[in-house]
Amino acid sequence: MTLLSLGTQGTQGTLALLCTVSLCGVGACHTFHDTPSFLWRGPCRLGKGGQAGEESRSWVYPSVSSACLWLLTDWPFCHRLQQGAAEAPDNRGGVADTQVVSFHSVSGILVCQAGCILEDLSQYLEDRDFVMPLDLGAKGSCHIGGNVATNAGGLRVLRYGSLHGTVLGLEVVLADGTVLNCLTSLRKDNTGYDLKQLFIGSEGTLGVITAVSILCPTKPKAVNVAFLGCPGFAEVLQAFTSCKKMLGEILSAFEFMDAECMRLVGQHLHLACPVRESPFYVLVETSGSSGEHDGEKLDGFLEHAMGSGMVTDGTVATDQRKMKTLWALRERITEALSRDGYVYKYDISLPVERLYDLVTDLRARLGASAKTVVGYGHLGDGNLHLNVTGEAFSPQLLGALEPYVYEWTAAQRGSVSAEHGLGFRKRDVISYSKPPAAVQLMSGLKALMDPKGILNPYKTLPSQA
Amino acid sequence: MTLLSLGTQGTQGTLALLCTVSLCGVGACHTFHDTPSFLWRGPCRLGKGGQAGEESRSWVYPSVSSACLWLLTDWPFCHRLQQGAAEAPDNRGGVADTQVVSFHSVSGILVCQAGCILEDLSQYLEDRDFVMPLDLGAKGSCHIGGNVATNAGGLRVLRYGSLHGTVLGLEVVLADGTVLNCLTSLRKDNTGYDLKQLFIGSEGTLGVITAVSILCPTKPKAVNVAFLGCPGFAEVLQAFTSCKKMLGEILSAFEFMDAECMRLVGQHLHLACPVRESPFYVLVETSGSSGEHDGEKLDGFLEHAMGSGMVTDGTVATDQRKMKTLWALRERITEALSRDGYVYKYDISLPVERLYDLVTDLRARLGASAKTVVGYGHLGDGNLHLNVTGEAFSPQLLGALEPYVYEWTAAQRGSVSAEHGLGFRKRDVISYSKPPAAVQLMSGLKALMDPKGILNPYKTLPSQA
Repeated sequence: MTLLSLGTQGTQGTLALLCTVSLCGVGACHTFHDTPSFLWRGPCRLGKGGQAGEESRSWVYPSVSSACLWLLTDWPFCHRLQQGAAEAPDNRGGVADTQVVSFHSVSGILVCQAGCILEDLSQYLEDRDFVMPLDLGAKGSCHIGGNVATNAGGLRVLRYGSLHGTVLGLEVVLADGTVLNCLTSLRKDNTGYDLKQLFIGSEGTLGVITAVSILCPTKPKAVNVAFLGCPGFAEVLQAFTSCKKMLGEILSAFEFMDAECMRLVGQHLHLACPVRESPFYVLVETSGSSGEHDGEKLDGFLEHAMGSGMVTDGTVATDQRKMKTLWALRERITEALSRDGYVYKYDISLPVERLYDLVTDLRARLGASAKTVVGYGHLGDGNLHLNVTGEAFSPQLLGALEPYVYEWTAAQRGSVSAEHGLGFRKRDVISYSKPPAAVQLMSGLKALMDPKGILNPYKTLPSQA
Repeated sequence: MTLLSLGTQGTQGTLALLCTVSLCGVGACHTFHDTPSFLWRGPCRLGKGGQAGEESRSWVYPSVSSACLWLLTDWPFCHRLQQGAAEAPDNRGGVADTQVVSFHSVSGILVCQAGCILEDLSQYLEDRDFVMPLDLGAKGSCHIGGNVATNAGGLRVLRYGSLHGTVLGLEVVLADGTVLNCLTSLRKDNTGYDLKQLFIGSEGTLGVITAVSILCPTKPKAVNVAFLGCPGFAEVLQAFTSCKKMLGEILSAFEFMDAECMRLVGQHLHLACPVRESPFYVLVETSGSSGEHDGEKLDGFLEHAMGSGMVTDGTVATDQRKMKTLWALRERITEALSRDGYVYKYDISLPVERLYDLVTDLRARLGASAKTVVGYGHLGDGNLHLNVTGEAFSPQLLGALEPYVYEWTAAQRGSVSAEHGLGFRKRDVISYSKPPAAVQLMSGLKALMDPKGILNPYKTLPSQA
């Protein structure tokens, strides 16, 4: 049996959902951990009487927390037999409630149930002249509970910061069934330890998030996008520094991609490069309260950047359609890579000055054994998406990549998982980014909060911890 | 003997310092917990051989962490006898290191030792065109380690968010002497639990912060301040909503004070009200990258606000001297209060719509038994500073205030300590803002991380926990 997922996405399986309930015979229980299968996708309303041996079954409870509570405390195959209670599926869950509980238009604080889909929340807020402080490609399918549980990054971290700063409160069901209600709508609260932080990014291994309170910024009145070509990575960094100084508070994205990325989106998706061919490309987005002011600032930056040689060519968009076309160049790289061959994906944080050295280094190391080696990502956040393709999966190529990529990252005190989390597949590489004392404390927290190991087992913490 | 403080400030004793070492005979050990006395104030360099019976002694170690480590693990009167190891003094400590470790001008990430004084760091960054993401009245004396340990709020939360979002890494000495090195300089890191969050705001009760990595914003090129009179609290809220929409990304402060506050700063400090007398006053600050643009936006807002009647009078400052004069009206309220009589202070978070109701309510409740009842604070953060004065301390007045203020706050799901923390005096009111399950989990964390209770004992957690 498998239940209570705090979802997962992508290669590590991390982004997603909230509270999914599935049931099968006790005998099959353990196999589920290796093959998460999510069965139920529509609304249904069944009683508590699921029988062992059934293949799948779901409940819709009056609230997610009441469902979790029952599952964690009453279900004999789960809690009492101390079997694995949580598993991470790759699609949406069943028990999730999806309602907005409240929104305050003065403070901009939204309280909602954890099963709300990010895009639905974005639309809800847009209608009220606000925006969610996070945005990501998976917004049409991911749930806010999963976003918080995995500390999702995405496209707005540069402007609005991480969820550790914007999430104001959580309701969480603990492993023993206790409902921990820290769902306050306060920007400031220094009464004891900030417990909600424990659940942000812990991938459902310490508790199941059932509701979220989050601070939402006012919707920017004007958005501009510039797409630029840079002659080298040093110039990309210079452009970033200039952007921060000249665009300051209106800078909302600074993304970069290398020439290989552009080649791939051209070859596989037939997207045209909108500027002169360059070794590097940068997408700058501004969001502000005056289109005229923001345009002036952006023009000033472009004049400076082109005059000083850090940018060799550029184009600016203010209308929705063209902005979307420019963003597509950056956002569809993943899709182009998947058409290029088998993809080895790494999501790395590095000191921004060293961000691209790993890509250059790997190209030299791998030579002809790799088909393509590309680097792109959220430069403003020091977050490199390093991807390597080969014609097919090759243990030799994997062996040349790992642990080399991790060792290289560790030598720079980087993170081997910037925004995707560790999940099941990367839990054993945690030591490249965290010292033994940290892993030991994490294990202590897990043992304290989930002594029977029923919450998302085999995830996040290393197998030897 | 008393040692290892993560400081404390103000009435709860929370803001301040880092790592202070003092020593006296074993017999006197327990009295220190009631009368924190901090003895050593200048640099000195002694060996490990402090003798029992000495009144006070301090060490300067190669690093704070090495000093903490030795103190926690080797000193017989402390760890081995399981006596209280931490106490919170009201001035600076001795062992603290005060160096900037690194600053990266591209990413804006500062790494420094925990003993650095906030104002020194601000000056260091100003010289490099950056600013600290926090600013507070006590900046000339408080240490960054103490700021982080107490999750200090202050004047920049509205713009840059809380320390939970801006602190990127910490070095912490745990109760068993382990040095937990999570001092990375990464904006994104999803490798396991975000342990540093545990120490932000836990007032030194889970570990001693010895170094901090923090994300610093670019220095704004232009700052404007407007001081406005509003006819009622409803209009204050309308002005806030308009400010957020019209000033958006350049809004950096929205502070309010009532007419009683203005009367007090006039009467006791001889500060003149710069606008027509009003029931409420608002200070709006903008910080941006273009003085011209920001001025235009601010003018547009003022025109709208005065045209629609939400503001009845206003004045704008762009030069340093006048801005300082306007800020003084808000910042010197505390000083004026202290000259008015005995002050009962409350630092409350409330849903912003209900923020002032508590003040009105208390005026009616207390009647002539209170000399003055004032409300002011960081409206943009939903943070009310509610202060009541009397001619002298009166148990009757205190009895009329407490637990009434706490109960009122709890009924609105507010926080009984928005930014000052709980410390020793408020630890027993935690239950007004946190449910029993939360307090229980906090106690579990404390027991896990400090089983002998040697870190800042008698603080933060309630006496019965």
